[in-house]
Amino acid sequence: MKIEDIRRVLIIGAGTMGQQIGLQCALHDYEVTLYDINSDALVAAMKQISVYATQLVNQGRLSQKEVDNVLACITTATDPEKASDNVDLLSESVPEIPELKSEVFAQFGALCPPRTIFTTNTSTLVPSMFAEASGRPERFAAFHFHGPMYGANVVDIMPHPGTSDTTVELLKDFARRIGQLPIIEKKESPGYVFNALIDPVFNAAIKLLVNEVASLEDIDRAWMGTTGMACGPFGLLDVIGIDTVLQIIVTQAQLIDDPEIEKGIDFLQGYVDKGWLGLKSGRGFYSYPEPSFQEPDFLAIEQAKVVPA
Amino acid sequence: MKIEDIRRVLIIGAGTMGQQIGLQCALHDYEVTLYDINSDALVAAMKQISVYATQLVNQGRLSQKEVDNVLACITTATDPEKASDNVDLLSESVPEIPELKSEVFAQFGALCPPRTIFTTNTSTLVPSMFAEASGRPERFAAFHFHGPMYGANVVDIMPHPGTSDTTVELLKDFARRIGQLPIIEKKESPGYVFNALIDPVFNAAIKLLVNEVASLEDIDRAWMGTTGMACGPFGLLDVIGIDTVLQIIVTQAQLIDDPEIEKGIDFLQGYVDKGWLGLKSGRGFYSYPEPSFQEPDFLAIEQAKVVPA
Repeated sequence: MKIEDIRRVLIIGAGTMGQQIGLQCALHDYEVTLYDINSDALVAAMKQISVYATQLVNQGRLSQKEVDNVLACITTATDPEKASDNVDLLSESVPEIPELKSEVFAQFGALCPPRTIFTTNTSTLVPSMFAEASGRPERFAAFHFHGPMYGANVVDIMPHPGTSDTTVELLKDFARRIGQLPIIEKKESPGYVFNALIDPVFNAAIKLLVNEVASLEDIDRAWMGTTGMACGPFGLLDVIGIDTVLQIIVTQAQLIDDPEIEKGIDFLQGYVDKGWLGLKSGRGFYSYPEPSFQEPDFLAIEQAKVVPA
Repeated sequence: MKIEDIRRVLIIGAGTMGQQIGLQCALHDYEVTLYDINSDALVAAMKQISVYATQLVNQGRLSQKEVDNVLACITTATDPEKASDNVDLLSESVPEIPELKSEVFAQFGALCPPRTIFTTNTSTLVPSMFAEASGRPERFAAFHFHGPMYGANVVDIMPHPGTSDTTVELLKDFARRIGQLPIIEKKESPGYVFNALIDPVFNAAIKLLVNEVASLEDIDRAWMGTTGMACGPFGLLDVIGIDTVLQIIVTQAQLIDDPEIEKGIDFLQGYVDKGWLGLKSGRGFYSYPEPSFQEPDFLAIEQAKVVPA
């Protein structure tokens, strides 16, 4: 198989990441099928994909005509057999439940053509857990995207020991063709690369806050003022979703014995109990759509003659 | 004491941070004395301050005339008595050796006027360690800057339990007057805020590299592509200095029992043994002045139609 042979992409799971991966492929002229067991989820997904596309038009990055063409390249399916027809590359974004992922790979492994490359967008599990279930271990790897895909442009390619070099090379080429920077993991590691770097920042930020070293806003200000990023750790946590982060930290806590982590879990649980899940619920550490960290005076410095570049 | 009463600033220690803090104060119309026990260090410091100032002119942020005026506001001293005359605010940036800092604060505490506010730029020690030595605990706090000061603009204000509210308020006002964003620590904590957030990123990056999960360049790419920052963890470590970071990690290793840390220490020691200390020695993880991460193709994505904002 050559890169030119990849034309049809099947996205399994129409949640946030499935929507973004599907749109990104369609934007680069791939035929995309978005599959979900839930037809309501597919309707909601197509609506959200339109919102993303409109944002690109509003930012002057695409014309309305281009967007119309792109949206026409995306079809939806609840029928696994139909969805699997003539697929060249499959990208799975179902919930992070190992048994569920294994079932999905076995089901589609039996339906898709033998040539189809199978990938998982997991951020916490490793590809060897599912390679056999797919029935094509040599054409199986993790292909892990980072959201939001119009801000970040990084994709991890993590082979398992049985992944063929050809598959890794094809995924590298495919990543670049859809505007993503491929990062190659030389071995399996559940934190991938960026998550392994950023998760400790979240843990440290929560620790500073629950230990009352500094205010939430000052912790974010320290990060924003030093790195130049548009938000700090708590702003980022709101984007990811406090419930999602809580789930990740609870999983970590089972591996390491650290009383500090328990304090962090209680703290996040307090937000989740109130329904304050972050950006998606309109309230998390900040209130949306106009969080205070986006206000002009959040980083204001009085009387500064020489401001940083 | 009111903010308007602060006019003369004494910088103790003419190393990198002392130079940058001195220039930043002079840029905002303060009279600055740069003190060091070593007159050669003072000559080198004034040369480096000129280099920084010329960079600001080249970037169009200051005129040559403004720079000349600013440089004229900085005097140097090796005589502690002369240096202490009529000082309103003292900023200490001597090496991170507690005994040395205590001696310096005792020496200048006896020489400076009683009104002088004393601050330490320490990034790893806490102000209560030196407050009594200064002879003015209520006018003593940590005032911790982040380099490079024309990229970052954050300063921690960490009081000890005996620091007066007036001192904290004065330091807040002073920070803003010199173009720095004050971050208030509500209690003593040796990691301050930004360091507590970024140090775990360095540890995680070194761990990924020594465990051979990904290449140094891919680790930096993953960070740069996701955060939009101009360099990744290894690029940042080169700026800070690999020898400095090694020292910090060796100190951490004494507190926690983690075999991973030992591997990281051996890895960094290998660079230090070869004299590869980072930007300052011309070679570290990258080669300077033209490190590969600054080359246009480092983050290049082939055929991307819609690139991230």
